[in-house]
Amino acid sequence: MKQINAEIIAVGTELLLGQIANTNAQWISQELSTYGVNVFYHGVVGDNLKRVADTFSQAKDRSDLVIVTGGLGPTEDDLTREAFQLVSKLDIMEHRPSLNKIEAYFQKQGMEMTPNNRKQSHVFTNANVLENKVGMAPGMIVSQQKQNWVFLPGVPKEMKQMMKDDVIPFIQEITENESIIESMVMRFIGIGEAKLEDEIIDIIQSQVNPTIAPLAQADGVVIRLTAKADSINTASNLLQDTKRKILERVGSHFVGINEETIDRKIISLLKEKGKTIAAAESLTGGKFTENLISVKGASTVCSGGIVCYNTNVKTDVLGVSAKTIAEEGTVSEACAIEMANKVRNLLNTNIGISFTGIAGPEPIENKPVGLVYIALCDENTQFVVEKCNFHGSREAIRRKAVLKGFELLLNYLK
Amino acid sequence: MKQINAEIIAVGTELLLGQIANTNAQWISQELSTYGVNVFYHGVVGDNLKRVADTFSQAKDRSDLVIVTGGLGPTEDDLTREAFQLVSKLDIMEHRPSLNKIEAYFQKQGMEMTPNNRKQSHVFTNANVLENKVGMAPGMIVSQQKQNWVFLPGVPKEMKQMMKDDVIPFIQEITENESIIESMVMRFIGIGEAKLEDEIIDIIQSQVNPTIAPLAQADGVVIRLTAKADSINTASNLLQDTKRKILERVGSHFVGINEETIDRKIISLLKEKGKTIAAAESLTGGKFTENLISVKGASTVCSGGIVCYNTNVKTDVLGVSAKTIAEEGTVSEACAIEMANKVRNLLNTNIGISFTGIAGPEPIENKPVGLVYIALCDENTQFVVEKCNFHGSREAIRRKAVLKGFELLLNYLK
Repeated sequence: MKQINAEIIAVGTELLLGQIANTNAQWISQELSTYGVNVFYHGVVGDNLKRVADTFSQAKDRSDLVIVTGGLGPTEDDLTREAFQLVSKLDIMEHRPSLNKIEAYFQKQGMEMTPNNRKQSHVFTNANVLENKVGMAPGMIVSQQKQNWVFLPGVPKEMKQMMKDDVIPFIQEITENESIIESMVMRFIGIGEAKLEDEIIDIIQSQVNPTIAPLAQADGVVIRLTAKADSINTASNLLQDTKRKILERVGSHFVGINEETIDRKIISLLKEKGKTIAAAESLTGGKFTENLISVKGASTVCSGGIVCYNTNVKTDVLGVSAKTIAEEGTVSEACAIEMANKVRNLLNTNIGISFTGIAGPEPIENKPVGLVYIALCDENTQFVVEKCNFHGSREAIRRKAVLKGFELLLNYLK
Repeated sequence: MKQINAEIIAVGTELLLGQIANTNAQWISQELSTYGVNVFYHGVVGDNLKRVADTFSQAKDRSDLVIVTGGLGPTEDDLTREAFQLVSKLDIMEHRPSLNKIEAYFQKQGMEMTPNNRKQSHVFTNANVLENKVGMAPGMIVSQQKQNWVFLPGVPKEMKQMMKDDVIPFIQEITENESIIESMVMRFIGIGEAKLEDEIIDIIQSQVNPTIAPLAQADGVVIRLTAKADSINTASNLLQDTKRKILERVGSHFVGINEETIDRKIISLLKEKGKTIAAAESLTGGKFTENLISVKGASTVCSGGIVCYNTNVKTDVLGVSAKTIAEEGTVSEACAIEMANKVRNLLNTNIGISFTGIAGPEPIENKPVGLVYIALCDENTQFVVEKCNFHGSREAIRRKAVLKGFELLLNYLK
C-alpha cells in the first residue's frame, strides 16, 4: 500500500466566527483513518481570496492529497475555485450536466434562477466532476503533478454523499490499498491516563504495528489500537496480540472493547449472570440508575431505585434506621450498608448498591466535601463498602462517585 | 481600538483521527469575535514535534496573537512546550506553585504521582503563568517580538476557565479596547430555533447593536445579544432594550438569562414559592431528578424520587393500583396521574411529577415508541397531564421527556 499524507481545508468565515464547529473535518478524518491515509493537518480559512490561495499554496508544498470543503456556492463569498485557479493556473469551464440540473431545480421550484447560480456549475477543465445527488454544486477531483485535490461542498449531507460515492473509491485506487486496516478501542476504568501509559510505556515505544494511543474520556481511559496488514486475519491477530500484552499489565482495569462502554458492560454482565439490581442514591441523585437505564435492554436487569436525597426519604421510604443516622450520620459506612440492603429488599432484586456522600459546596455533619461511601450487597448479604475522598466540583464529585460504583460493580460481577 | 489578527492552533492526534471535533476553536472564536479580534485561521496538527514546530513557525510569520490548545499534559505525546521551544529558543523551567498543586492533588487522592506528571508544571521562563483552577497543567501567555502566544490545556473546562479569568482581560489590554462589550444569553424552552428566529426576524435584521444570534442547545434555544458602547451603563441599556423587545414576542417561552438554565430556574422558583418536589420516573430512569439535584442547594426543595422502571416497582413500591395497569397499561394517562400522586404522598412533598413512556427501540403494550405521558400534581390534587409523541433515538426521546417535564413545571411555577 502506498503511503498518502493528507490535509483537510475548510473554507468559510462562519467557522472562524465560531458559528459552527468543523465537524466535516472530524468526519472526513475518521474515514481517511479507516482507509489508511495519514491526516497531518486540518486548516480553516475565511472567505478571503488571498488567504485561501496562500493556504492552498502551502498544502501544495506538503501534502499528497488535499480535501477542501466549502466555498463552492453561488455567492460572492464563495471563492474556492478562484483561489485554486491562482495556485494551479487551470482553466475553468461551465459543466453542462451540472448547469442543466441547477436550471431544472429552479424551474421545478417555480423560482427565478439568479445569474450567480451559473457559477455553481463551474469546474476545472481537467477535473473529474462528482455528481451532487442531494444539492446543486458538483464536487471535483483534480490531479496535478502527482498531487490530488478533492473539492467538496460544505453542506455535510452533500459532502458525505460525494465522499462515499466517489472519493473513498478514488482513495483506495491511489493508495493501491491492498492492505487491510483494522482498529480497536480498549476501555479501562479506575486508572488515570498517565498511570495507564506509564504501565505500558515500553510496549507503546517498542512497536509500530498496531499503533497504540491512550486517551482520557469522561467515563475512563481508552487505548486505540490500529493495525495494518495484508489480510483481515493478520490484522486481527496483530490487534489480539497487542491487546493480550496490554491486558497482562492493566487487565484488572479492563472494561471492554469498542462500543462496550462501562454501562453496557454492566448491563451485559448482569444479563449473563441473571442478576437484577436496584440503587439507593443520595448525592448521585439518580445518575447511576439513569446511566444504566440509558442502555437499551436495561429493563430486564435494572428495576429502578430510590433517590433518597432528603434524610426523611432515607428513613421513611427506604427504611434506614433513625438510630443509625443519629449515631453515625447519613454520610457513614453504616448508613451506606443499610441503604444498599434496604433498596435490595424493597425492590426485590439480587443486588443493591448505594451512594451517600457530600457533593458540596458545603460540608455536612462536620464531614468534608468529597467524602463518599458506596456499598454493594447481594442476597448473601455480603458487603463491599468503599470510602472515597473525591476532589473537584460538585459535578465532578458526583460523576466520580458513579464511576466508582460502576468499578465496584464490575469487579463484583467479573 | 487596535486591530489584532489571530489564529487558533489545536495540537492533538485525536483531532486528526476524528475522535473529537475541534469545539475549542469554535468557542474561542466566538469569544474573540465578541472582543473584536479578527480570527484568520484555525489549524490542527498532530502530536509530532516537527509538524507542530512548523505550524508554530508559520503562525509566527503571520499572526499577532496565537492561541494554542492542547499538548500540555503529562504524556510523551504532549509536545507543545518542546515545539514552541524550537521556534522561540526560550528556556523552560519548573513552576513551583503549579508543581506543588499537582503533588498535593495526588497526595489528596491517595494516588502515586508518576514522574511524567512533573512535566505538567513546566513553563517558559518569561511566561505569564495562568493558574489552572479546575485541573493540573497551568496555561501561559508568552510575549515575544510584539507577538503574543497563549498556551491553554485542551480540556474544554480548563481552557474556558483560563480564557475567562486571564486571556480575555489580556486581550482587552493589547487591543486597547476602550469600548465596553457586554453580552447576555437569553434562554428559552418549548420553542424551536427556526420558529424563534421567525418570530423576531425583523428585530434581528433591523439592528446591529446589540447583535442578535439565536443558537440551538441541548436544553432549549438561546439568543446571544452583544452590545458595544462607551460605558457599561449604555451597553446594559442597549441589552435591556433588546431583551424587552424580544420578550414581547416570545416571552412565554423565556427561562432566564446567562447562567440561569432551566434546572437552576426551577430550583430557584421552588425555593421562592417554598415548595418541595419528588418525581416518579419510568423511561427517564432518574434523569429528571438527577438534573435537579445537579444544581447546588437543591436539597432544600428536591427530596428525591422513585425510579420505577420495572412494573413491579410501580405497584409494590410506589403503590400504583394493579387495576390501573391491567386496564390502561403502564404507558397511560391514568398510570402517570397515579404515579405523580403516589410519589408526592410517599415522599411527603408539595409537588409530584411523573414520567412514563416508551423510549424504544421496541414498542410496548402495542403502543408506539416515543409515546410519553407526563403528569404533575400538587396538594390540591390538581393535575396537569401532557401526552407527547417524541421522535428520535432512545436517548433523544428520554431527553425530550425531561425537557417537557421542566417546561410543564416552569409554567406551573411561574
